Amino acid sequence: MRYELYYWPGIQGRGEFVRLALEEAGADYDDVARGPKGMTTMMAVLAGDGATPPFAPPILKAGKLLIAQTANILSYLGDRHGLAPATEAGRLWANQLQLTVTDFVKEIHDTHHPLGAGLYYEDQKPEAKRYTAQFLAARLPKYLGYFERVLEQNPRGDKFLVGGKLTYPDLSVFQLVEGSRYALPRGMAKAEKKLPRVVALHDRVAARPRVAKYLASPRRIPFNESGIFRHYPELEE
Amino acid sequence: MRYELYYWPGIQGRGEFVRLALEEAGADYDDVARGPKGMTTMMAVLAGDGATPPFAPPILKAGKLLIAQTANILSYLGDRHGLAPATEAGRLWANQLQLTVTDFVKEIHDTHHPLGAGLYYEDQKPEAKRYTAQFLAARLPKYLGYFERVLEQNPRGDKFLVGGKLTYPDLSVFQLVEGSRYALPRGMAKAEKKLPRVVALHDRVAARPRVAKYLASPRRIPFNESGIFRHYPELEE
Repeated sequence: MRYELYYWPGIQGRGEFVRLALEEAGADYDDVARGPKGMTTMMAVLAGDGATPPFAPPILKAGKLLIAQTANILSYLGDRHGLAPATEAGRLWANQLQLTVTDFVKEIHDTHHPLGAGLYYEDQKPEAKRYTAQFLAARLPKYLGYFERVLEQNPRGDKFLVGGKLTYPDLSVFQLVEGSRYALPRGMAKAEKKLPRVVALHDRVAARPRVAKYLASPRRIPFNESGIFRHYPELEE
Repeated sequence: MRYELYYWPGIQGRGEFVRLALEEAGADYDDVARGPKGMTTMMAVLAGDGATPPFAPPILKAGKLLIAQTANILSYLGDRHGLAPATEAGRLWANQLQLTVTDFVKEIHDTHHPLGAGLYYEDQKPEAKRYTAQFLAARLPKYLGYFERVLEQNPRGDKFLVGGKLTYPDLSVFQLVEGSRYALPRGMAKAEKKLPRVVALHDRVAARPRVAKYLASPRRIPFNESGIFRHYPELEE
């Protein structure tokens, strides 16, 4: 089956967590909105009158299924491509970790848009700076420290988050590290001193042949100031 | 099996979405943190060195399983208590809707804490007001209008969100309506004019015998200004 991924072209955004899973799985997919007339097609999907309308991208079309919400898509792909545990307990645990990734993504997004996406960054700069200060002091270390602890407490060793092999939350935590390094390099450099296992997980994921090939390809959109992880140096001053 | 729910005592918060499912299911559960030494027990669970440490409450202990993240808990309970569809497509759809509830909950929480939970509301009042203005103008109608559309497009009729019978996202959308009415009564009264199906769903859920009994019981903590849905009249001025 050839999947169709629908996500805003030009940014990694939340779609990137899905792309990383598709790439690691070696799955066949179209990144529809990046192709000709892609945005028109995506807007039609969003406005569709079907039984399961999506609220927002990313959206995955898998045969007759139209699946939205990043963690939901990953749960589906994980089951199909050996990127999730086979047991119910394991599947719940992987999903639980992924939902914590979701929470982190929203909070790091809000470092540049604390007053909402309806206002430009330029119209909420002082607020963004105040938000970022508490994010760097408390939230970033808390979230990434949590994943460090999960690795440390994994009875199967500290190489992966869930059990003894790669699952989809590992790919997402790789992306959190990449994105945080891009967006908040000073704060992240400081935080990483206490995150040896998370950094090692990041490196382990980056070195996987399919991931490495993807990251070096034009399919990997560079980070930029339209996505979730944005580098505004003034936020760290 | 007697479940153990761990959640901050004194507020409905995210725990309430779990409580509503447990109550509708007629499940046997302890609301641990509300009992004697409950907070001590909950803090020990949060600090535990087990294989699946939770990031934050709510947490459900179900036999040997320790499950966190609201939507993850609901997916688990839904499967066990007839509150989720039986098919994979239906389960994905219910989960997708619940994750959209999660997003709404975070955004309405941020109406009073746009600069982060590390600062008091009193220290971010002007920002809260700016955030709330865009929330009422754009986000609340968008989210609740989405659920209206889901009801409208349901091929099995507009009585429930998923298929032809109650599932756990219905209980959560009831709570979104209750909470939004409490927190932002003026904005919500205006929004409801375009939400006849959502309001009817709310009423349908409220009238279910077990839910009605729960809502009238002391187990239902009243809304207050420590929870997610807070009524600060100045935010709507």
